Amino acid sequence: MPYPETAEGFLVEDTATWSTFKRGNFPLKPFEAHDVDIAISACGVCGSDVHTITGGWGEMPMPLCVGHEIVGTVVRVGPSVKTVSVGQRVGVGAQIWADLDCVNCKAGEETYCVKALDTYGGRYEDGTVTHGGYSSHVRAHEFFVFPIPEGLTDEVAAPMLCAGITVYSPLTRLGAGPGKKIGVVGLGGLGHFAVLFGVALGAEVYVISHSPSKKEDALALGATGFISSSEKGWAEKYAFAFDFIINTASITFDLKEYFSTLKVMGTFHNVGMPETPVTLKMQDFVANSCYIGTSHLGNRKEMLAMLELAAKQNIKSWVETIDVSEEGCHEAVERVRNNKVRYRFTLIGYDKAFGKRV
Amino acid sequence: MPYPETAEGFLVEDTATWSTFKRGNFPLKPFEAHDVDIAISACGVCGSDVHTITGGWGEMPMPLCVGHEIVGTVVRVGPSVKTVSVGQRVGVGAQIWADLDCVNCKAGEETYCVKALDTYGGRYEDGTVTHGGYSSHVRAHEFFVFPIPEGLTDEVAAPMLCAGITVYSPLTRLGAGPGKKIGVVGLGGLGHFAVLFGVALGAEVYVISHSPSKKEDALALGATGFISSSEKGWAEKYAFAFDFIINTASITFDLKEYFSTLKVMGTFHNVGMPETPVTLKMQDFVANSCYIGTSHLGNRKEMLAMLELAAKQNIKSWVETIDVSEEGCHEAVERVRNNKVRYRFTLIGYDKAFGKRV
Repeated sequence: MPYPETAEGFLVEDTATWSTFKRGNFPLKPFEAHDVDIAISACGVCGSDVHTITGGWGEMPMPLCVGHEIVGTVVRVGPSVKTVSVGQRVGVGAQIWADLDCVNCKAGEETYCVKALDTYGGRYEDGTVTHGGYSSHVRAHEFFVFPIPEGLTDEVAAPMLCAGITVYSPLTRLGAGPGKKIGVVGLGGLGHFAVLFGVALGAEVYVISHSPSKKEDALALGATGFISSSEKGWAEKYAFAFDFIINTASITFDLKEYFSTLKVMGTFHNVGMPETPVTLKMQDFVANSCYIGTSHLGNRKEMLAMLELAAKQNIKSWVETIDVSEEGCHEAVERVRNNKVRYRFTLIGYDKAFGKRV
Repeated sequence: MPYPETAEGFLVEDTATWSTFKRGNFPLKPFEAHDVDIAISACGVCGSDVHTITGGWGEMPMPLCVGHEIVGTVVRVGPSVKTVSVGQRVGVGAQIWADLDCVNCKAGEETYCVKALDTYGGRYEDGTVTHGGYSSHVRAHEFFVFPIPEGLTDEVAAPMLCAGITVYSPLTRLGAGPGKKIGVVGLGGLGHFAVLFGVALGAEVYVISHSPSKKEDALALGATGFISSSEKGWAEKYAFAFDFIINTASITFDLKEYFSTLKVMGTFHNVGMPETPVTLKMQDFVANSCYIGTSHLGNRKEMLAMLELAAKQNIKSWVETIDVSEEGCHEAVERVRNNKVRYRFTLIGYDKAFGKRV
């Protein structure tokens, strides 16, 4: 059965062969009143894809088609859909469904819905497994479908839908704006967006990195300063300097030193999910009453605001593109795994792979 | 040399004999333009006193006179003093000095001044060791001297100056007020103030405790509810319930379970400084984007606001009183060490011990 019963994509069959993709079909969920079908034209390659297919985040239904930074064109809408229409260019991020009725959804915090479904590896009530955007089509509830402003190209918009929103949301919630000084630890896919959006929001952004070689990129992205954390005592000069820190790196360093650079009641905010635990004493927090925590994506309102800001300020993700195919997917996830990308991959060439679907 | 060169007090000589107090004299710092001398009439007995004299928080100058919940009468003011006058009843808390000139002091965060001196066990630039309120007199910079409103008795006001402000500050900073739902973990000296002030600020307060026997006290203090955390699965009923939690207990429990009761972006705020570290994974925070942190006392503005609120709402600390003396100090710290107090001790009877000094 072809679309609309199924979609065609590049799937991983086993975590042991995590970078081997096989072309295949998978069923789409039954089409419902609020559903939107999208013919995919681009998809970002996210660190989460690699965590998932390598088994790093636990067991997943296999075979699985990953990818949750999806851009495409609406080809079908359910009768209740009000927010998008056929022919419109839209995006889908890392979340595909929520009950929209629980205490968190009602508070505009749908990413924390306990019934939330991820864009891939989730399972609808009827048993259908969700599959991602290394594929021809995706079917999504309209609440998780976001119009893409004209100014943004497919490949620039795609990685914003997960990596972008993951840092944009805490940046705005923690108050990034004029007069605020922010530290960004690590300059990878997430870090580069934290700089771009932090600067776009009007804050002074300092990149804190172990790799002095990242200095040039940091400044080119708009950072006010670059701090080399491989220099002993680097933190002393920045005592009580930052309103908050967005940490995009794994915590394999002395947290206390980083904490010392926070203003009183500053926040050390982690994005990304390192697999190793961290040991802390409450005494580590007491010199400035700081906090540590994390967040998960961002809500619909933030997603729309981020895309608008990106279009308005002409923010360009630093992306490399690669054609979607068995070989293309293989190369992309291998290079993401080995940190060999500046700073995101977007899979393109979907018409070549799946034919014209619009 | 008697006062004003020295004060007389009850001192601990060694951590090995931490509950043995000897009457003795100790030098006061040279009197300066902003200094205020106070003839002490009451002093609370704080858990910090016990941590200090037992050596639990590291080495301290000995012999040492502890006590940092001090109430008394001003008997002398320096020529620059503008905030209090001779004869006025005032209090001194756990901090006796700051430079009032650094970035934190200028931001109204003097408790985080890197040069801050504790009321006892600190050392002025000239070498004079600071001593606390189990004594006849204390000399303090006026910035750390707080007028006590008429409505508050000595014994009720004293424990507010450390235990009270320690919870009042985070309560207000985290937004305690009408419409907010707060969890207070542990019902001891700090916890009982968290309930009293949380309720006074207009919030709904729930006490979370391992000891079902505390239920009656919790409700008598004004709590809306009591949650027995010794019941398996207690947290399920309170998923996403609390705007924040004030933890007054040592973290010897499953933090994830407590985190689960927080609203999205809720804070698990620790007061008190357990000596054991805690191991966390960032994944523990992700179900609701919660934060963990701590704080240290509260600033002058908060101290004055707390005392005003307490007087206005006639808030009564639950205190037992005991006469200051070698025996009285011994009994007080032994009972605090063994958690045998509901919920604070205030040392009184200072005229009997030291003569009338006003």
